[in-house]
Amino acid sequence: MRIHVQNPPDDPAFTVTPALWDAAAARAGAAAAGHTVSFGTTRADFAAAIPTAEALVGDKDVLRALLPAPAPRLRVVFVANAGVDNLAPFDWLPPGAILLNNRGTHAEKAGEFGLMALLMLLNGIPAMVTDQRAGVWRKRWGGLAAGRAVTVVGLGALGGAVAGHAMRLGMVVTGVRAHPAPHPACAAVVGTDAIDSVLPGTDFLVLACPLTQATRGLLDRRRIGLLPRGAGVVNIGRGGLVEQAALCDALDAGQVSGAVLDVFDPEPVPPGDRIWTTPNLIVSPHTAADDPASYLPRSLDIFFAGLGALAAGRDPATRVDPARGY
Amino acid sequence: MRIHVQNPPDDPAFTVTPALWDAAAARAGAAAAGHTVSFGTTRADFAAAIPTAEALVGDKDVLRALLPAPAPRLRVVFVANAGVDNLAPFDWLPPGAILLNNRGTHAEKAGEFGLMALLMLLNGIPAMVTDQRAGVWRKRWGGLAAGRAVTVVGLGALGGAVAGHAMRLGMVVTGVRAHPAPHPACAAVVGTDAIDSVLPGTDFLVLACPLTQATRGLLDRRRIGLLPRGAGVVNIGRGGLVEQAALCDALDAGQVSGAVLDVFDPEPVPPGDRIWTTPNLIVSPHTAADDPASYLPRSLDIFFAGLGALAAGRDPATRVDPARGY
Repeated sequence: MRIHVQNPPDDPAFTVTPALWDAAAARAGAAAAGHTVSFGTTRADFAAAIPTAEALVGDKDVLRALLPAPAPRLRVVFVANAGVDNLAPFDWLPPGAILLNNRGTHAEKAGEFGLMALLMLLNGIPAMVTDQRAGVWRKRWGGLAAGRAVTVVGLGALGGAVAGHAMRLGMVVTGVRAHPAPHPACAAVVGTDAIDSVLPGTDFLVLACPLTQATRGLLDRRRIGLLPRGAGVVNIGRGGLVEQAALCDALDAGQVSGAVLDVFDPEPVPPGDRIWTTPNLIVSPHTAADDPASYLPRSLDIFFAGLGALAAGRDPATRVDPARGY
Repeated sequence: MRIHVQNPPDDPAFTVTPALWDAAAARAGAAAAGHTVSFGTTRADFAAAIPTAEALVGDKDVLRALLPAPAPRLRVVFVANAGVDNLAPFDWLPPGAILLNNRGTHAEKAGEFGLMALLMLLNGIPAMVTDQRAGVWRKRWGGLAAGRAVTVVGLGALGGAVAGHAMRLGMVVTGVRAHPAPHPACAAVVGTDAIDSVLPGTDFLVLACPLTQATRGLLDRRRIGLLPRGAGVVNIGRGGLVEQAALCDALDAGQVSGAVLDVFDPEPVPPGDRIWTTPNLIVSPHTAADDPASYLPRSLDIFFAGLGALAAGRDPATRVDPARGY
């Protein structure tokens, strides 16, 4: 297969080098054999490669800026990203090409971030940081993890990893997902349409689902009001999952006791936005799921696994369904 | 045995009620049989009980304020605290009485706090909170726990629990303690006198040892300088373990990239102290190890275990050695 890797022009940390490529190909074995690869960073590089390319690899925003383009032989577009909400609608995808993402890459890092965020809520760190900003020493007693009720919305790579960590600390995890199949880390799983039924029993709510037409604004003012007073919120999905002003209001009022947010709407959070000064809120700048050291190697492993599946006539595990949006 | 419980006059959360006592006695079984108990909160209550008391139970500061006192029959003083540094020298202890503490009570809570603090350092949360205070959106890439080098000073209940959590996330833990016996969560253990040899290879340093003559000022300016640039520091032991001004200087200079501190010298941190505004520093108000819901029940379990050991002619596991200081 003729593969073209289009790298960002100026971001060495997210550049697929020939050395990274060769190492991934060696790990992949047969799935990586017999292909030829080119690497580019400029629009001219892309223009030279696209007429013959059968697979494209790159960051979603890099590729999206260059597509659509005449790509008569293109079969696979692989984006080194998990959330593809800003690629919808997917009409830019050349005919005959399928879209693969790198979901799974982020699981370990996001799982550890989610574990951290739950423990921060449990220990009252968001409130302590607010006290610290005011120079106030005030005891706030936390508690033990065991027995606390955690609701995780989205049980893909990210949510599943967070649920696993929470379960191992003895927390009682309820999962929420589109199709409520059981999950090994969850005591119960309900469909997204039943989320209202589990919010009142939730100590800590973790949002880890994709942003789609079905999930936009999922945690709106009404649902925030269904949480018990003093609940905590974690968002490692997308900012658009939350009615941000309503969450800030709930933090101001103490209805929500703390929040650890990695994603916002918009990003970056603008200067002067109330997010910066809302009490009991921790701002993480959309870095929860990314580990530069392992990011590209894992992404390439997932790409080659996808090629291997295609060669074997199977559907790649990370194929994006444009209708579903993830 | 004639047991007197002296409660604080005004702190219901830390008051041993007859109900808590009876529940603990029921759990203890034989070790709690045949005793009589009285409860007091005032100086008069104490004066009435002490001539005949054979065991005293209470908060260290409550008991210390009432002792020494003529206590001809006293054999056991049990303080519902682990750190007894501010009780030294122990010359207030009536002759013939031994001192027991409640070490072990704090392990689960402190272990979870330590796990959280390590993940916060790994994810750059102290720096993010500093950015947030300035209203600045700045990406800071964290990493994965696996393979990171954690040094835990003190492998008692607290340090051992933190080491266990760190090991389970794949961190490589080096223990430091007075007598360098192996520890199941540690890849290596060195004596406190060899701490200088392990600091240069430390990503995250956790202080979880008692404050004694031997450990006061352990993390001084010179040793902070032995840490690699960008290391992180957690203190859940005592503020006096650290040369606080030197740590603030190292945070100001970026030599230490983040710190999560639960203990300070002095406490409370005074208004206007530079601790409040030092960058990349998280202030937790000495609550890391305490879970009010389980604190007194666990303390009483440890007290009755101590009585059981004495009845069997064994040394109680939580006996404080005045010479050693813990």
